[in-house]
Amino acid sequence: MVTKNQIKLIKSLAFKKNRIKNQLFIVEGKKIAEELLDSDYEIVSVFATRDWIARNMFNTVIQVSNTELNRISNQKSPNEVLMLVKIKKHQIIDDDGIKLVLDDINDPGNLGTIIRTCDWFGVKQIICSNNTVDIYNPKVVQSAMGSIFRVNVIYTDLTDYLSNVEKPIYGAYIDGNNVRDINFPKDLHLVIGNEANGISKEITQYISNNIAIENISNSAESLNAAVATSILLHEILH
Amino acid sequence: MVTKNQIKLIKSLAFKKNRIKNQLFIVEGKKIAEELLDSDYEIVSVFATRDWIARNMFNTVIQVSNTELNRISNQKSPNEVLMLVKIKKHQIIDDDGIKLVLDDINDPGNLGTIIRTCDWFGVKQIICSNNTVDIYNPKVVQSAMGSIFRVNVIYTDLTDYLSNVEKPIYGAYIDGNNVRDINFPKDLHLVIGNEANGISKEITQYISNNIAIENISNSAESLNAAVATSILLHEILH
Repeated sequence: MVTKNQIKLIKSLAFKKNRIKNQLFIVEGKKIAEELLDSDYEIVSVFATRDWIARNMFNTVIQVSNTELNRISNQKSPNEVLMLVKIKKHQIIDDDGIKLVLDDINDPGNLGTIIRTCDWFGVKQIICSNNTVDIYNPKVVQSAMGSIFRVNVIYTDLTDYLSNVEKPIYGAYIDGNNVRDINFPKDLHLVIGNEANGISKEITQYISNNIAIENISNSAESLNAAVATSILLHEILH
Repeated sequence: MVTKNQIKLIKSLAFKKNRIKNQLFIVEGKKIAEELLDSDYEIVSVFATRDWIARNMFNTVIQVSNTELNRISNQKSPNEVLMLVKIKKHQIIDDDGIKLVLDDINDPGNLGTIIRTCDWFGVKQIICSNNTVDIYNPKVVQSAMGSIFRVNVIYTDLTDYLSNVEKPIYGAYIDGNNVRDINFPKDLHLVIGNEANGISKEITQYISNNIAIENISNSAESLNAAVATSILLHEILH
């Protein structure tokens, strides 16, 4: 049984300001819920159908009917469970390897897909500009799937951040040097720009190497940002 | 001024059966409209704001107010113009190079992104299973952008198709051989499976080579289908 106040709270979490105010975000569906249980995120409330409860040992679950789940869910086909989870503040870790830097990625599907790719390739840290779409946006969570719990995503002022780093800074441009022709060091930053405008002027001054994915046909104007990020990471890592 | 019947027709084209019945699809926004004008697609009607009309020479345009454009648009921020365009029946061309084969790609954003990547890499032909999402779905058109007019996308029975081809057939699997270790021929088929289930059993029998993108972290379960397709195409083409 879901109360009116619970419905109000859940619905309000579609908006960033309410997520920040309540320090909560939503995780939906049985597959991602499994990965959440394996993570160190703190689960605050669980709303689940009888079927889910029968299969899972979990202390305090609010049982809901399918109609109720439909009512609180953001998804077209809700899947047994919806959890309210405590937002985690990530910190920049000064480790080795590749750090991905996102300069105003706007589309939640793109950010989610990028997080999923980073998880696959073992890139543990993403540094986002403050204008990059919020990691706890429901569409980001949905497209990142369980990877959202395993990649460290930080929001900060990129100018401050990049002016203080020592590792080389590569930037993705339409007309950079072919990524195929470059030998990459083990430790580096890779900067990806906004979907429509690319890397901003203020950030360009920090880029030491411009790289690109060869445009073979010369008919398409650009690649999708998540696709470009993934191709570049695959090249850099091999 | 838009009539009630025009609104009804435009709204109905959100659904595949109505697109087929009317042999029409929708193209929205000034950027993609420009690329449409450069293509050999047949434009049936143009609804545009005064601003767009002032900048474009076009014979018969129905002028609409911003309120009217908002009413007929599928998009959150409509952008000056909406066109009704004649569906084009593509044919399989027996040319050289890479043919991409999609076995039940479900997500319109994924298909659109794949079409955009193919356009970038000069892959001219995509053969889709009959259950793959429709190319003229508004979300496919939106995410493919102008590339939708330049890539040849065919829907057919894949069993029939693959049993009659001579060029080698590579299939993307989670546990295939690392794409990095393979020397690819110039002419080949690359098969990509469904987002949740991968390549189907009926199609697996036609695959001569299983390939994969190395899972470096072993924590993520899979990559997004459009991302995987793009990384594989980039590898094959270099």
